[in-house]
Amino acid sequence: MSEYTGYKGRSLEFLKTNKILIGDSVKILADIIYSGIIMPRYEHSDNKHIVLKLKNGYNIGLEISKIEKIEKNEIPKKIVEKIEKNEIPKKIVEKIEKNEKLPNILLLSTGGTIASKIDYRTGAVTPILTAEELNSSVPELAKIANIDTKALFAEYSENIMPNHWLKIAETVNEHLNSDYAGIIIAHGTDTIHYTSSYLSFSLEGFPIPIALVGSQRSSDRASSDAALNLIGAIKFLTECKTNGIYIAMHKDENDETIACHIGTRVRKNHTSKRGAFQTVGNDPAFLIVNNEIHKNMKDDFFTMNEYNPKIKINEKVALVKYYPGYDPIMLKNIINEEYKAIIFEGTGLGHIGKNMYPMVKMANEKGIFMGMTSQCIDGRVRMTVYESGRDLLNLGIIPLENMIPEIALIKAMWASGNTENREEIKEIMLKRIASEFST
Amino acid sequence: MSEYTGYKGRSLEFLKTNKILIGDSVKILADIIYSGIIMPRYEHSDNKHIVLKLKNGYNIGLEISKIEKIEKNEIPKKIVEKIEKNEIPKKIVEKIEKNEKLPNILLLSTGGTIASKIDYRTGAVTPILTAEELNSSVPELAKIANIDTKALFAEYSENIMPNHWLKIAETVNEHLNSDYAGIIIAHGTDTIHYTSSYLSFSLEGFPIPIALVGSQRSSDRASSDAALNLIGAIKFLTECKTNGIYIAMHKDENDETIACHIGTRVRKNHTSKRGAFQTVGNDPAFLIVNNEIHKNMKDDFFTMNEYNPKIKINEKVALVKYYPGYDPIMLKNIINEEYKAIIFEGTGLGHIGKNMYPMVKMANEKGIFMGMTSQCIDGRVRMTVYESGRDLLNLGIIPLENMIPEIALIKAMWASGNTENREEIKEIMLKRIASEFST
Repeated sequence: MSEYTGYKGRSLEFLKTNKILIGDSVKILADIIYSGIIMPRYEHSDNKHIVLKLKNGYNIGLEISKIEKIEKNEIPKKIVEKIEKNEIPKKIVEKIEKNEKLPNILLLSTGGTIASKIDYRTGAVTPILTAEELNSSVPELAKIANIDTKALFAEYSENIMPNHWLKIAETVNEHLNSDYAGIIIAHGTDTIHYTSSYLSFSLEGFPIPIALVGSQRSSDRASSDAALNLIGAIKFLTECKTNGIYIAMHKDENDETIACHIGTRVRKNHTSKRGAFQTVGNDPAFLIVNNEIHKNMKDDFFTMNEYNPKIKINEKVALVKYYPGYDPIMLKNIINEEYKAIIFEGTGLGHIGKNMYPMVKMANEKGIFMGMTSQCIDGRVRMTVYESGRDLLNLGIIPLENMIPEIALIKAMWASGNTENREEIKEIMLKRIASEFST
Repeated sequence: MSEYTGYKGRSLEFLKTNKILIGDSVKILADIIYSGIIMPRYEHSDNKHIVLKLKNGYNIGLEISKIEKIEKNEIPKKIVEKIEKNEIPKKIVEKIEKNEKLPNILLLSTGGTIASKIDYRTGAVTPILTAEELNSSVPELAKIANIDTKALFAEYSENIMPNHWLKIAETVNEHLNSDYAGIIIAHGTDTIHYTSSYLSFSLEGFPIPIALVGSQRSSDRASSDAALNLIGAIKFLTECKTNGIYIAMHKDENDETIACHIGTRVRKNHTSKRGAFQTVGNDPAFLIVNNEIHKNMKDDFFTMNEYNPKIKINEKVALVKYYPGYDPIMLKNIINEEYKAIIFEGTGLGHIGKNMYPMVKMANEKGIFMGMTSQCIDGRVRMTVYESGRDLLNLGIIPLENMIPEIALIKAMWASGNTENREEIKEIMLKRIASEFST
């Protein structure tokens, strides 16, 4: 991102002429005098406005034709020196008094947009808010729950790896005997559904509900969904009267409904919309509509009774998405890398081309567990309808019902962490543990 | 599939007691005398009925409690001998007279369920109908168009490979100067959208419309969608007044609406539903509702004017779906296999973990074209929002707008077939050729 990101045409010209960069603290004379920081703009913005972040946190757009004067606020030399020496103290977060009448919630933060803010110098979003800052940035939270916070890491979720999942699961497990009504995990949205499914398997039956919460727009943008997702998640955790692992996010583009999705049946289905997450093939388990909680009664999702933690993993599991032209050599390379399990993301009802058969046979002979899911994402695999499916069954591939490919991958990593025995892996894969497939 | 597929409990017992297998020709005495072939049953069937295919082609369920007697029809020895010697002649298809008042349509068949029938001996579905048989099996077709047929192959679509695409494209190209109003390609549904996108790129601007048609249920099942999809496709081809490559399939579970999807914006999103295909992020280009044709006016899909065939391909393109725990070694293996292009199916707005950076750098230095799409499937990649995206841009990865990952893969195979020059591949990938991304 450049020093003028998003600015073009007349607005870019205006900034250049006045020698103002993004991130500069400025005073602007228009209808009144404004003071604030010049913000970057987004793609497809017009070229008539500049955007200013006011001290109260709001962003406003100012029409450049109405600006009489713009000048940089001089930063006192002492402060510049302190910035350069990295001596500026961290913002002191007010300690919020506990209210005995409110439920207690634990908030673990891992990073992501929900715990991000824009760096006004570069215009980039960086994951730097601590859980405590996150909490204090949404003052409504203190009115509905006492929130203890703990920062685990500050990672974009594409950098959350299986070892992070172990750390999250262990931290949750440490709070088994606590007085928390529920636990929130603030997480980047890119891979939040991978994390939720790992927790669903490894913490089967954890007695209190856990909601993973992300946001699609960072909390300093007007369209941010962070506050509402957090508020909805707390409402859910304190009133759902069940356990299990969920993802709580905007149901759609409106600010009216938060959807709580079963942690093993959910997918990010849009890159940028606030309502990007969807339960595959079903409605969400719970909706929070205008502060009221609604349960989806169509299915019995919650079969986890006894707490049975198994915080283990084996990363030697591959997801193989089949497509016309997929070179079987790539499957051979996976076999040679000593993988324990392969999850195929086949076509349709669960197919891969017959050119793959020799390598599948080799994998089978090497004792590798092979499971079949579908790149259709929704719907059940069924490998008995066509002769090609029957061939694959005979070659040892196990159809994995209607498990979502990504979730089947994580379950196989978890199953392979618990046992090296292929028959036992198969047994685990076909046992419904956390509503990961429907019966 | 066993000799008793789908039968269980009392119905299974009934067949075993009477020594009847699936595929046997039987006479049954119940309220009247029935004669037909015992059919396999599908999962979740009850155990009170057996299913008989009558000579008129219909399947009926008979309650076993009402059956007084069942016995095998003896097959005359001569016929058994002929079957064993493979001497049974092919069904003679009646030659349909051309009606000069009707439009002419070319029907190419490639296999798949639409050209399949059930083998009553094994219960499996096999792709064995020729285009001519397909045509004569839907007698309504002759009333709306004169259909010339040509069988190219008889493959399940998971076995359709890039060389099949070349053959289809070449066959279409041979009919450039014909009097056909349009061309139908009967194709298995598993990979029909891969084929439609290859044809969209390689036959850019072909003057008459082309509809790929599949079916989710084979034509001898009562719930088959084959006939209606074909009829809808012909209606579309003869009345759409445009060119381009489309997929014509049931819009939903009803028999009322056929959707015609742009060949580069469509995906099979359910394993078994008749309305499995969806245009990603938009409505279909055309709907055929109760025999009336409706055009989606939201977008201008059809920008192909001049016919510009480029029937080339290079299969050395890999689709890499990123997930937490993806081992960068697998990317290294792809680089070592001399691939020309890599399409990433990243997370969210277009990200992959930072543990991938060294291998991405290596691929970049080797001159491999790298493009980014999102496993969210819907929505645009945007790699300038987060610093991680900016890192990937700096490492040479090109964001591919809102191209569907599978379609970007096919486009890259096609682009690499046309040029080895990375800059030219990039230029082709970012040029909107067949509505594969929106602007």
